[in-house]
Amino acid sequence: MEDNRENLKKILNESGDYSVVGSLWIEYNEEKFFGPGRIELLQHIDETGSISKAAKEMKMSYKKAWNMINELNSQTRIPFVILKTGGKEGGGAVLSEAARDMIVYAQELRMRFQEFLKIETNKFKKDFFQTF
Amino acid sequence: MEDNRENLKKILNESGDYSVVGSLWIEYNEEKFFGPGRIELLQHIDETGSISKAAKEMKMSYKKAWNMINELNSQTRIPFVILKTGGKEGGGAVLSEAARDMIVYAQELRMRFQEFLKIETNKFKKDFFQTF
Repeated sequence: MEDNRENLKKILNESGDYSVVGSLWIEYNEEKFFGPGRIELLQHIDETGSISKAAKEMKMSYKKAWNMINELNSQTRIPFVILKTGGKEGGGAVLSEAARDMIVYAQELRMRFQEFLKIETNKFKKDFFQTF
Repeated sequence: MEDNRENLKKILNESGDYSVVGSLWIEYNEEKFFGPGRIELLQHIDETGSISKAAKEMKMSYKKAWNMINELNSQTRIPFVILKTGGKEGGGAVLSEAARDMIVYAQELRMRFQEFLKIETNKFKKDFFQTF
């Protein structure tokens, strides 16, 4: 590793800013279950009480948002989003308590991931740019 | 958190397999620098000695592969891929030693990330499905 470090020190731009970044989500039976897109959609539904309004705020079609929620609901025993039928805009929608709890869990998970990325970014810079 | 756990225990499918997954890459000045796609392309170039052959194996156009390499080369002081001009297939290509070293570093980083994902997957299952 010492040798590698020396080679890479010569080749990387010391003036530039390198960082380790990534994305994270939870899968259910190898299909997407809970990631940034769904979390954002759920938060908009929580604020607006409506899938169509939430979809508009995310600039996605109602159909796409509805499919996302439908798929999410099929992956749990009890729906994350409770749909109210009727009404001009296709009915209202509210989050179940468990959906809110899952958002909190996912946010805590994200913070641990951010910490991992920070440590790796610092390690990268230390390995390649610091002189001891 | 105790309360959250109880709600989520009721709502998640105990029979299903939940896992925490993700992707990881290194950025340079907030642009992609080193991730799975480029690593795979570099490995194919190393095996075949040619960008066009490497592109074929990845089922991407020569133009796209060339752009990927060109951008990568612009992000370091010395090129990662050394191009040899001429020849029927647009000339040969070889990896610099530093490119190989960076691949090794990225693979080690990936292993630490896999470990993080494993720990988080186990934590998720323990938090939501184990009865104490």
